[in-house]
Amino acid sequence: MTSPRLATFSVKGTTKYGAVVEGGIVDLSARHAKDYPTLREVIAAGKLASFAEEAAGRAPDHALSDIIWLPPVPAPEKIICIGVNYPEYKDGQDAPKYPSMFMRSPRSFVGHDTPLVRPRASVQLDYEGEIVLVIGKAGRHIPESAALDHIAAVTLCNEGSVRDWLRHAKFNVTQGKNFDSSGSLGPWLVPYTQESQIADVRLTTHVNRELRQDDRTSRLMFPFRTLISYISTFATLVPGDVIVTGTPTGAGARFDPPRYLKPGDVVEVEAEGIGSLRNGVVDEA
Amino acid sequence: MTSPRLATFSVKGTTKYGAVVEGGIVDLSARHAKDYPTLREVIAAGKLASFAEEAAGRAPDHALSDIIWLPPVPAPEKIICIGVNYPEYKDGQDAPKYPSMFMRSPRSFVGHDTPLVRPRASVQLDYEGEIVLVIGKAGRHIPESAALDHIAAVTLCNEGSVRDWLRHAKFNVTQGKNFDSSGSLGPWLVPYTQESQIADVRLTTHVNRELRQDDRTSRLMFPFRTLISYISTFATLVPGDVIVTGTPTGAGARFDPPRYLKPGDVVEVEAEGIGSLRNGVVDEA
Repeated sequence: MTSPRLATFSVKGTTKYGAVVEGGIVDLSARHAKDYPTLREVIAAGKLASFAEEAAGRAPDHALSDIIWLPPVPAPEKIICIGVNYPEYKDGQDAPKYPSMFMRSPRSFVGHDTPLVRPRASVQLDYEGEIVLVIGKAGRHIPESAALDHIAAVTLCNEGSVRDWLRHAKFNVTQGKNFDSSGSLGPWLVPYTQESQIADVRLTTHVNRELRQDDRTSRLMFPFRTLISYISTFATLVPGDVIVTGTPTGAGARFDPPRYLKPGDVVEVEAEGIGSLRNGVVDEA
Repeated sequence: MTSPRLATFSVKGTTKYGAVVEGGIVDLSARHAKDYPTLREVIAAGKLASFAEEAAGRAPDHALSDIIWLPPVPAPEKIICIGVNYPEYKDGQDAPKYPSMFMRSPRSFVGHDTPLVRPRASVQLDYEGEIVLVIGKAGRHIPESAALDHIAAVTLCNEGSVRDWLRHAKFNVTQGKNFDSSGSLGPWLVPYTQESQIADVRLTTHVNRELRQDDRTSRLMFPFRTLISYISTFATLVPGDVIVTGTPTGAGARFDPPRYLKPGDVVEVEAEGIGSLRNGVVDEA
C-alpha cells in the first residue's frame, strides 16, 4: 500500500490542498478550508492522517496534469536548514561538535515539477538532496527520547544553493541560500507514524538520470532526534516548522571541475517511502 | 510636532494595532481589521500614513499602561539582519566587500517594555542596538537610486544575541541569534517620508543608563540604499519585510571582561526621530 500523501497545489490560479490518490488529487480544501485554511492548520490540529483517510475512497477532483505543485507547508514560521550532515566516505574526519544551521525564506523554494531558477547573478547554482521533517507538536527543551513525537510529516528538499554567494560573508551563508526559487520542497507530506519511516532510508539525488548523491539516514552525523532536541534548546518549535536535515556528499561543487546546474537539467531527489521530487532548471528571466 | 507612530499591541489578550497619540493609543484595528487584519496588510496597502492621520484627532481608546507592546510587524515574510555595520573608531581596518547577514525568527523578538529572556543555556546574553527598515513596496533587482522608495517605515531593534551560541557552528550564527525572546523590535513604526529621517541619525544604546553604543547612520559601512539593493539581487523584497541594519561597536562582548546582560538590567536603544526601545532582562523560567 502507498503511504498517504497530502499536497498543496494551485489550480486555475487558486491555492488548495488535497490528498494524492490513484489518478489524481482529491480536493480537501473545498470542504475544510474554512476551519483549516492551509495544511499548516491541518498539521496544527493533528488531522493530516484523518484527512488522508477521508480522501482515500474518493474519486480525484483534479488530474495531476492540471495542477501546479507548491511547497507543501505554505508560510511556515521557520525553515531551519542543517549544513552537510552525512560523513564523507573516508577516515579521520573531525566531526563538528554542533550542527551548522541557517534559515531560508519560503520564497527561495518552488514546489515539485516547477523549474529551479539559475539567477542572473551567478552560474553556480547547485543541488543538495535532503530529507525534511515537518513539526506537528509545539515544544521547547525537548529531550531526544521524545523528539520524534514532535514530527507530523516528512517530505523532501532540493536545498539549491548559489555557491559563490555562499562565501560573500565570512560567517554566514544566508545570501547563497536565499535566491528566489533556487530550491524546492515536496512533492507532498507523508504523515509520520513510526520511526521505521525515517530510521534507515536511502536518499539519492540524480541529475539528468546520473546518480550524484546516495546515502542513508542511518549515517546522519546529527540524527533527527538530536536536531529536534538541539533546536528546541534555543527556539520553540511550532506546528508547520520545517527542518531541512542536511545533505550527503556529492553536490556539484565537489567535482573537479565543478558540475553546476544549467538550463535544461533535471534534478531528482528521491527517498524510499517518501517520494521523488523532480525539478528542471531555467535561467532567470 | 511628533512623527506619526503606529503600533501593534495586545490588550486583555487580544492583538490589535493603532496609533500612538497624546495620552494613549487610538485603536485602528477596531475599524479596519476586516480589510487589513494586521499592520502588515496596512503597509502593503500603502496606508500607514493615512491611518495615522485618521487617528490624529481622536481621543485614545487605551492608556499605554493597559497595553502590552508587540513587535510592530507580526509574522513578516523575512527578517534579515546585517552583521556589525559601523566601523570601529580606528584606522587601517579592512572593510568587508559584502555585508554579512542572517535571519531571525519572529519568535526571537519581544516588543517594547517586555523583558528579554536570558536563556537557561547561557549567561552570555548581549545587546545590539540597531535601526530597522520595514519594506513597503515589493521589488527585485532594485537599483540603489530607487532603493529608499521601497521603505514604508522605520523602527528600532535590540538584536539581542547569545554570544557563545553564535560560535557553535563555523559558518553560521543562527543559533545564537534565535533564542526565544532574546531580542526586541519596536516600540512602533514611524512612516518613512524623506531621507532626512534616516540619513544622519544618532543611534545609542544604554544599559542601566550607562552609554554603551553611540554612532550615526551617516557612518554605516553598508548604507541603507546599498543593503536594499544588494538583498534584492537574490531575493524579492515584499511589504512587511524587516531589515535590521547592523549595530555599532560597544556590545557587551567587546569589554574586558565582557559585560553581558543579567536579570534586572534595563537596555534602551534610542534614535533621533524614531523613539526609544526599552527592555528589562529576566531569566528563563
